[in-house]
Amino acid sequence: MNLGEAQLLDAGDPLAFARERFALPDGVIYLDGNSLGALPAATAGRLREVTERQWGADLIASWNEHGWIDWPARIAAKLAPIVGARPGELLIADSTSVCLFKLLAAAARARPGRTTILTQQGNFPTDLYVAQGVAELLGLTLKAVPAEQVAGAIDEDTAVVTLTHVDYRAGAVHDMRAINETAHAAGALVLWDLSHSAGALELDLAGTGSDLAVGCGYKYLNGGPGAPAFLYVAEPLQDELQSPLQGWMGHAEPFAFSDDYRPVGGIARFLTGTPSILALAALEAGIDTFAGIAMSDVESKSRALSQLFVDEVEARCGGEARLASPRDPAQRASHVVFAHPQGYAVMQALIARGVIGDFRPPDLMRFGFTPLYTRFEDVWRAADILAGILASREWDQPRFLERKKVT
Amino acid sequence: MNLGEAQLLDAGDPLAFARERFALPDGVIYLDGNSLGALPAATAGRLREVTERQWGADLIASWNEHGWIDWPARIAAKLAPIVGARPGELLIADSTSVCLFKLLAAAARARPGRTTILTQQGNFPTDLYVAQGVAELLGLTLKAVPAEQVAGAIDEDTAVVTLTHVDYRAGAVHDMRAINETAHAAGALVLWDLSHSAGALELDLAGTGSDLAVGCGYKYLNGGPGAPAFLYVAEPLQDELQSPLQGWMGHAEPFAFSDDYRPVGGIARFLTGTPSILALAALEAGIDTFAGIAMSDVESKSRALSQLFVDEVEARCGGEARLASPRDPAQRASHVVFAHPQGYAVMQALIARGVIGDFRPPDLMRFGFTPLYTRFEDVWRAADILAGILASREWDQPRFLERKKVT
Repeated sequence: MNLGEAQLLDAGDPLAFARERFALPDGVIYLDGNSLGALPAATAGRLREVTERQWGADLIASWNEHGWIDWPARIAAKLAPIVGARPGELLIADSTSVCLFKLLAAAARARPGRTTILTQQGNFPTDLYVAQGVAELLGLTLKAVPAEQVAGAIDEDTAVVTLTHVDYRAGAVHDMRAINETAHAAGALVLWDLSHSAGALELDLAGTGSDLAVGCGYKYLNGGPGAPAFLYVAEPLQDELQSPLQGWMGHAEPFAFSDDYRPVGGIARFLTGTPSILALAALEAGIDTFAGIAMSDVESKSRALSQLFVDEVEARCGGEARLASPRDPAQRASHVVFAHPQGYAVMQALIARGVIGDFRPPDLMRFGFTPLYTRFEDVWRAADILAGILASREWDQPRFLERKKVT
Repeated sequence: MNLGEAQLLDAGDPLAFARERFALPDGVIYLDGNSLGALPAATAGRLREVTERQWGADLIASWNEHGWIDWPARIAAKLAPIVGARPGELLIADSTSVCLFKLLAAAARARPGRTTILTQQGNFPTDLYVAQGVAELLGLTLKAVPAEQVAGAIDEDTAVVTLTHVDYRAGAVHDMRAINETAHAAGALVLWDLSHSAGALELDLAGTGSDLAVGCGYKYLNGGPGAPAFLYVAEPLQDELQSPLQGWMGHAEPFAFSDDYRPVGGIARFLTGTPSILALAALEAGIDTFAGIAMSDVESKSRALSQLFVDEVEARCGGEARLASPRDPAQRASHVVFAHPQGYAVMQALIARGVIGDFRPPDLMRFGFTPLYTRFEDVWRAADILAGILASREWDQPRFLERKKVT
């Protein structure tokens, strides 16, 4: 494909308009929105409003007057269609790690007598660390098997299966429905981490019979660095599960100041402490970038962008950079990785030219495609620049780290 | 005292200059900074800088270029002199409730064989709820006794004593040194919640031999609604204690992406997930309002403000509003409560006149005095307005909720 053909794809892109919803820096091709989503155009103004008018002028009264107390549920309701959940099954809270801890411990305790938490080797590290902590705390065994062996390892000892839906390195996707069905047949629960899929793929938490999920607010949801996370608990499980992190925000009457914990009915019992209103305001602006957009369009564009990149890199670079993501687009999500022995240096050279991806050990160059603001033209240029770097072998030269911008 | 005399106190106040560090609304006497601190003048600009220049323009590179990864420790180092801690013993993280959970569970597990978590009846609710959750999770007993019986209840079964330093209702203060010594003599640990004292009193965590503490960022520290909390672990305990919330930010090498959790040495092991950078930026601006200010001056002014309020209310209102805080200023912190059978209605009438305090069941009107921005004149006027309301008995009339502002 040539540049003009890529630009024609942009001209025909039904999501092209959404790029204006972001404040992107000039001269940069940003392919790391899977790690930190770009700044929405509305965020700064929204933060100013909440800071100056709500906090500054209305002070403590804002908890009622501006409804701060309801924001975790109100903003979650906007996220619900993005992940295919019913609004009352979703909540904004804490960090992904803390949400994982809450739901994993709650799920394991809801299956007493079962001895195992099952996960996959190479899961995102914090998922493994949280699971190790929960297993130790509850006297359970954490069993980690290769991804393709997870379904076969579910048995009557399994209390919970905890998996990241999209692998943070290769981008490979688990079949949510199939894992849910296998787990349920064995009497186990499943906890999904949607950090690398929420906002990138068309998800259907309700339709796939999912029990529990958590996900990240600062990747494809564009909520800002360290944005609050979200958690999902299917309605039938909500009153059965008990959060180990019992805080006043999950109490039936938080402002009755009772000495005894009595969890509120429904999803809100999974709240713990007071949430950061500023962080919630930024997350809301991020989620609002999806307003009026069909997730089927997002997923289609996601696959088209990543496929263009794979095709162009392989056409230009021969076998020098090896595709380390699934070759079948249906088997991967919105990022791809190429392995190269000098991957770290090549990524530095890309960044110096304004193509921002990232590096994951041992040798993976990761490129994320965010359908709301990545253009086909960007993808074409990034492949072209990567090919130039690989051809020049400039990482053998001392000046390769010099910073340049794409013009 | 008359108004002129109160204004003379302001003229001689060594902290009077600090009021300019805040963006306070006109026509309001804000006596609820113990619930939500006022907006610092620098916060909006700081948020704009972090949002637009750091996140927006520098994107993912900001984790290194702007040092985001170090902010929880860097900002904690600014807080250290405010609470009398050594910088390496303090960290900004999560919410107060989540920090409480982490440290309480870690402490209880560090004293195996001991069966009891000890606290006081009427402790702040989330402290009790978290402790109930931890006790249930670890198979321990939570024992709650009246405040004055805590020291006598510490015995060889006590794993941890967990107390709020300053009572959120009456403002009564525990003797940290005495409780620490009694607990240590019995082999128990102590976990302090400093939510109602950090930024209001001169604290000395290190000098009082404190083991563990947590506290709130959004009250006297002015970090904004739901600001991140802080946690303190005395250096000798850091490597002995294990956080139950094992996340990647507490790993020795978070970006090595290892499958196995290996906590970093020192305080940073108590980090869990990715912190909100926007919330941290606002908290830093809040903590910066204390720059160059001696906490001994803050505590002196705090006591002088609250004593003026008590004196003026009692002089004007006779016995109609009953002081429900300790009468001895040395026994209380920076807020006072008056009980009145119509306390809720009286507080609504005060708020309608621009005097913002809050109400706590069953009958307590709570007034917080924040030495950085509350003037003696404000205190005098608030007492005068309260006396007028009590004399008018206007809560018997239907129009009392009409909103007015002080001019």
